[in-house]
Amino acid sequence: MTNQKNNITIFAPATVANVNCGFDTLGFALEGIGDTMVFTKVPTPGVRITQVTGADIPLETSQNVAGVAAQAMLDGVQADFGVEIAIHKRIRPGSGIGSSSASAAGAVFGVNQLLDKPLSLSELTQYAMKGEAIASGQEHADNVAPCLYGGITLVTGYDPLHIVALPVPELYVGILHPHIKIATKDAREILPKHIPLKDAIAQTQYLSGFVAALYTQDTQLLENSIKDVLITPYRKALIPYYDELENLAKDQECFAFGISGSGPSLFSLSRKKEHIDNYLTQSKQLFAQQGLEVDAYASKINTSGCTLC
Amino acid sequence: MTNQKNNITIFAPATVANVNCGFDTLGFALEGIGDTMVFTKVPTPGVRITQVTGADIPLETSQNVAGVAAQAMLDGVQADFGVEIAIHKRIRPGSGIGSSSASAAGAVFGVNQLLDKPLSLSELTQYAMKGEAIASGQEHADNVAPCLYGGITLVTGYDPLHIVALPVPELYVGILHPHIKIATKDAREILPKHIPLKDAIAQTQYLSGFVAALYTQDTQLLENSIKDVLITPYRKALIPYYDELENLAKDQECFAFGISGSGPSLFSLSRKKEHIDNYLTQSKQLFAQQGLEVDAYASKINTSGCTLC
Repeated sequence: MTNQKNNITIFAPATVANVNCGFDTLGFALEGIGDTMVFTKVPTPGVRITQVTGADIPLETSQNVAGVAAQAMLDGVQADFGVEIAIHKRIRPGSGIGSSSASAAGAVFGVNQLLDKPLSLSELTQYAMKGEAIASGQEHADNVAPCLYGGITLVTGYDPLHIVALPVPELYVGILHPHIKIATKDAREILPKHIPLKDAIAQTQYLSGFVAALYTQDTQLLENSIKDVLITPYRKALIPYYDELENLAKDQECFAFGISGSGPSLFSLSRKKEHIDNYLTQSKQLFAQQGLEVDAYASKINTSGCTLC
Repeated sequence: MTNQKNNITIFAPATVANVNCGFDTLGFALEGIGDTMVFTKVPTPGVRITQVTGADIPLETSQNVAGVAAQAMLDGVQADFGVEIAIHKRIRPGSGIGSSSASAAGAVFGVNQLLDKPLSLSELTQYAMKGEAIASGQEHADNVAPCLYGGITLVTGYDPLHIVALPVPELYVGILHPHIKIATKDAREILPKHIPLKDAIAQTQYLSGFVAALYTQDTQLLENSIKDVLITPYRKALIPYYDELENLAKDQECFAFGISGSGPSLFSLSRKKEHIDNYLTQSKQLFAQQGLEVDAYASKINTSGCTLC
């Protein structure tokens, strides 16, 4: 073991999952919005969450997303040491931009830094999914993968887990987080169990078109592909002023708009920062007029994933 | 007008549509199996089908797929000439490997050769779709596009029409055509109108994974992606010995097997010609034992599309 520190700080970015065309499949990472976590390697085995700031989440390892992910990984690699983790959350839990995923991905990224033989990003994703399952009730990777890999990721399957890091175009992202609560249960129950076959076909065209557009740098195809006929038509009912916000985004020449993950945060995309800035300003005004609180961020797509600070 | 002949012969290849993961979207062209068509430029406006060999199809322009496609194109470009077309079909109508599409695509490709200002492949596809509609009752491009472009094509949408020519790996294709008739009506009516949402999600992952696999040359992802939970589970009931043939293909290390278009032809894929040859030999034996007729072809993926002979 050389060049290894026993005390490290990492950054785990917020992420946008689904991105309209890729429900449970597609996600990208955000720049500048994320949690920091401090890891201390200790001789006593096991994981202890020593501190959480910025959010009211359990300290108990088995109840804590980061704790569960870190413990699963220490068990998996049969580590001969333990870790203490201090978590400084800047991503609000329940905001829909991958708060629990940042904790899970950050945990395994941090533990990996303390290992003699680091694991691959794919292996880390599998451990992070164990933590994610505590928050969402199921092991999924659509936020965890972009948090670890950075950029835009496509989870093509779980058996075996396969993640494709897609080419990343120069884009600006607007995130708007209305301060409302959407229970995961409601977000799931509002979805139909069955859908028209023709909608399924359309959705395969959107997602495959999106992927092809990134590889071929086809701007028009990209803009035509970030659509959703499966999920958004139902879930948008859970978001106040969804249609008005979509119109504001269109008016400001954002070429894509939709729900981030299961909401309530909304994402918008443009090639120009001023489009995003103008849209966010107008959206904040709309919410202020209604007496509703909202957070707004402008960002680029983060291409680094989790990083050492 | 220079260098232009008034009498040309073209080759229009057979095609495989759907390819399991891309219903109504994906297709590829075959080498060595296709129709030839002879075009003569004449002063009298309009299209006349002067001869058809190899199939019992109407000579009347308005009833003939090639006639309708060629006429739509002559009208669209306001041509000051007419064409006579002799069609020599080697692709059996109703075989499921793009017989009508080869006529439609071949017609517009041929007329394009006689024009002063040739049209783009995308424009040709739109005219060919007019002919295709005569045969199938709807304008679609999943066979017409690969017939014109060659290689593997993805039709990502119709409004506007957008076709992506995907990267083509070195693959061998086996085509097995059992001599049974599947009415288009039956092939459509056997499909469910509604499907489980989770199947739609899986299918988006298969097709997007397939596209990503071609761009990244990821063999494993390619093999895992040529799957179908939407259509094949229903349509395979229309094909005799489907499961037995699929097992033969697997036994011979073909990594993909499925229905070509709406059948009854079946495609199989492998990286080695001997796998395809062995599978076809065994499949022919199976059909011979049952007293059923079958055509079998081994081919590579055609990367040229329609060509001048």
